[in-house]
Amino acid sequence: MSKSLPKRSENYSEWYNELVKRADLAENSAVRGCMVIKPYGYSIWEKMQRALDDMFKETGHTNAYFPLFVPKSLFEAEEKNAEGFAKECAVVTHYRLKNNPDKPGKLMVDPEAKLEEELIVRPTSEAIIWSTYKNWIQSYRDLPLLINQWANVVRWEMRTRLFLRTAEFLWQEGHTAHATREEAIAETEQMLHVYATFAEEFMAVPVIRGKKTANERFAGAEDTYCIEAMMQDGKALQAGTSHFLGQNFAKAFDVKFVSKENKQDYVWGTSWGVSTRLMGALIMAHSDDEGLILPPKLAPIQVVIVPIFKGEEQLNLISETVLPIVAELKKKGISVKFDHSDKQSPGFKFAEYELKGVPIRLAIGARDLANGTVEVARRDTKEKKTYAISEIVETVSNLLEDIQTNIYQRALNFRFENTHQVDTWDEFTKILEENPGFIAAHWDGTPETEEKIKELTKATIRCIPLEAVEEEGKCILTGNPSSKRVIFAKSY
Amino acid sequence: MSKSLPKRSENYSEWYNELVKRADLAENSAVRGCMVIKPYGYSIWEKMQRALDDMFKETGHTNAYFPLFVPKSLFEAEEKNAEGFAKECAVVTHYRLKNNPDKPGKLMVDPEAKLEEELIVRPTSEAIIWSTYKNWIQSYRDLPLLINQWANVVRWEMRTRLFLRTAEFLWQEGHTAHATREEAIAETEQMLHVYATFAEEFMAVPVIRGKKTANERFAGAEDTYCIEAMMQDGKALQAGTSHFLGQNFAKAFDVKFVSKENKQDYVWGTSWGVSTRLMGALIMAHSDDEGLILPPKLAPIQVVIVPIFKGEEQLNLISETVLPIVAELKKKGISVKFDHSDKQSPGFKFAEYELKGVPIRLAIGARDLANGTVEVARRDTKEKKTYAISEIVETVSNLLEDIQTNIYQRALNFRFENTHQVDTWDEFTKILEENPGFIAAHWDGTPETEEKIKELTKATIRCIPLEAVEEEGKCILTGNPSSKRVIFAKSY
Ligand SMILES: [Zn+2]
Ligand SMILES: [Zn+2]
Repeated sequence: MSKSLPKRSENYSEWYNELVKRADLAENSAVRGCMVIKPYGYSIWEKMQRALDDMFKETGHTNAYFPLFVPKSLFEAEEKNAEGFAKECAVVTHYRLKNNPDKPGKLMVDPEAKLEEELIVRPTSEAIIWSTYKNWIQSYRDLPLLINQWANVVRWEMRTRLFLRTAEFLWQEGHTAHATREEAIAETEQMLHVYATFAEEFMAVPVIRGKKTANERFAGAEDTYCIEAMMQDGKALQAGTSHFLGQNFAKAFDVKFVSKENKQDYVWGTSWGVSTRLMGALIMAHSDDEGLILPPKLAPIQVVIVPIFKGEEQLNLISETVLPIVAELKKKGISVKFDHSDKQSPGFKFAEYELKGVPIRLAIGARDLANGTVEVARRDTKEKKTYAISEIVETVSNLLEDIQTNIYQRALNFRFENTHQVDTWDEFTKILEENPGFIAAHWDGTPETEEKIKELTKATIRCIPLEAVEEEGKCILTGNPSSKRVIFAKSY
Repeated sequence: MSKSLPKRSENYSEWYNELVKRADLAENSAVRGCMVIKPYGYSIWEKMQRALDDMFKETGHTNAYFPLFVPKSLFEAEEKNAEGFAKECAVVTHYRLKNNPDKPGKLMVDPEAKLEEELIVRPTSEAIIWSTYKNWIQSYRDLPLLINQWANVVRWEMRTRLFLRTAEFLWQEGHTAHATREEAIAETEQMLHVYATFAEEFMAVPVIRGKKTANERFAGAEDTYCIEAMMQDGKALQAGTSHFLGQNFAKAFDVKFVSKENKQDYVWGTSWGVSTRLMGALIMAHSDDEGLILPPKLAPIQVVIVPIFKGEEQLNLISETVLPIVAELKKKGISVKFDHSDKQSPGFKFAEYELKGVPIRLAIGARDLANGTVEVARRDTKEKKTYAISEIVETVSNLLEDIQTNIYQRALNFRFENTHQVDTWDEFTKILEENPGFIAAHWDGTPETEEKIKELTKATIRCIPLEAVEEEGKCILTGNPSSKRVIFAKSY
């Protein structure tokens, strides 16, 4: 714990990697590209899961579970989807090991246990789920079908980074089926807004809601909606996607229904997902050179109390005051840790809880006891203030709300300062070099221009914002007419 | 829904299979041996997870997540464990698909994307976890390490049955590391008792706590504890296991620690798990020929209210009375569904909620309204009674507790009636043929005798009960001396 973190200003990327490890969030495993999510990191993910799951259920969805494996013949049924994922599929070809006759004590794949049909480890579950929906849907009465799954998926990425891009990751994937196009689009948009609300209200990360360009669409979707967040280095991070699938999967898997009017038609589909990638967004949006800064709503420990004492007697006196505070805070649903271990110094503990992003730290020593006060330090601003013990529970409770609001506002201000309306190519390239962030600029709507801009600048169109105003303009690259601005940025 | 279930007395096995499907719990998938857990089934599993997870956390454990894949070299490090699972491993050998040049639109495994080292889809995670623990543990200060994981695992079973035995299943696996043998044994026993408490208090399924014989131990464990439950056909179902691993995995993965006394030693391990198999136990322990019987503590819907009405006006009148009841029940934390759909008749709904095992059904029609009464039907006994509307909330609340207790007591009585102390071989074989159940009998303690009995009768030693009294006796097969009775049964 003694060595300090790399500074964001010097090496943002290294700062992130080190922070993830030192704050005990995750680490690389013995399996190429797969991570171990450590207990502290996982406890944040659990809080995310709980909040999202509640929101899914409030919007009428239920959870289910579908197989990890997708038989190759199902996998390839929706061609665009298959094409999109074929290059990053882990494939199970055998179902048994046997003793290696050449190497005693070692095992080898048993060549006699070869599968007739290979199984793909799901990179996403549309194929296996739509092949199941075929049996579940006959009539309009079976619709809408609103199902979500919490699962692990595998995409064989060559360059991986903890949380941001890993071969295996955890996620939820919603898969819904509807009687009409309109209803499916409404569902796609509803779930985008659920994600946006979660990002902003729980993660305290402001996001832009938008649509992807055709180039960046999910393989097999007619339309992909997304939320995009700005990290502290000005880069964009796609934090969630919601896809309108049209009738593509229904056609690939022959999922038809009989309507109220007794007509047969293919059903309309959506899918939507967020993953452990959100952990990366959370870390990069708020944290500083001393460590994590967690929004109170997702912090596993919201308040830590560090007693400053010499010997058991002093600790006992402090505990007499602290324990009722702990009890009262818990009663209010606040998660609090009283760290009275004598193995580490208070200074060490302060640094440790800063690193871990605990929103509020209370410190109390003999002098505080005499004065009837507690020192309160907030993680986000590092401000310290002394409060009377009698008002500490209310103070903490209010402060947690303040911190949640403050870090959201700070991230929003940061995004505002680093978002530029740009109308010329010179300005566009200059800003990308000197002052990375979001650029709202006109684009002529063609994939070719989009591709060209990417080649020239590494910036991509993050999205066409839903709230973009209609405005006449000229494409920054080609000068061709455009009716609204899109968001360009370099991205994770 | 019109066709009735097979009867338990006629074909218990078929009754189970049909019930699982018709009650919308699970179904077979397109992947051999893998199931789809349907929303209603999954919502029961979620309740189990929540209760277990709370108990794990109360006993000091935290959750984490380790990779799905285990490199072959790690997998084979603990030889006994590897041997035990080698024959049922799904193996990933390739990481890419490509277009099949011979079949346009079809994919094939890309032979150029062969992994240097094969990856085993985890059948259990000791290997990957202990290889990680090596880096996490240096000193006694890092111990105990108390971690649990909720995950999917794959064991390539040839004969599968929904929930009871599937190629992929969901489970939790605890993996702990300790400084002393005694502490690790205490942990193993503690978790056994957590499982037993969960089975009895939540699932309402009485269990026998015991130890497995050497033959039946987990591959790589020094001792395996288990809980065994009796199903309604008298067969035993192993509902959870807790393993004392000794230093086996620590030695295989070189996990050492420096003790307080500054001595280096291998750490001591445990692992323990329960799976979606518990769903099978829950279903088979309580349900009847009309459908599921769920314990209130795990029922997704605890109370259903079915209005009996003609036309909207009547429904509105009934709703005026029912909605405040719904609100009050919800306030008490009771999950209640007011099924006022007019698409199905009340009779159809009654049958449907019986099939789904909803513990309490309230029915209310125009006459009830006039009388200020509600008809209350309990699922476990099928008893119906009429109560005043004013006392309905309290009645329901008490009744839920009654039902929870009653089905536990019923299962306990059933087990008592079907458990026999047997002292002769003749009696032993006769009971197994005529009146299957648990048999408490003496055994000479040798694997050979155990094996012989299994060959002759298909009955196995389910466990050596922890609470077995010391008693001199003679082995039912060999007549050799024995000091306590063990539990024999046929099993799932
Ligand atoms: Zn976007
Ligand atoms: Zn047992």
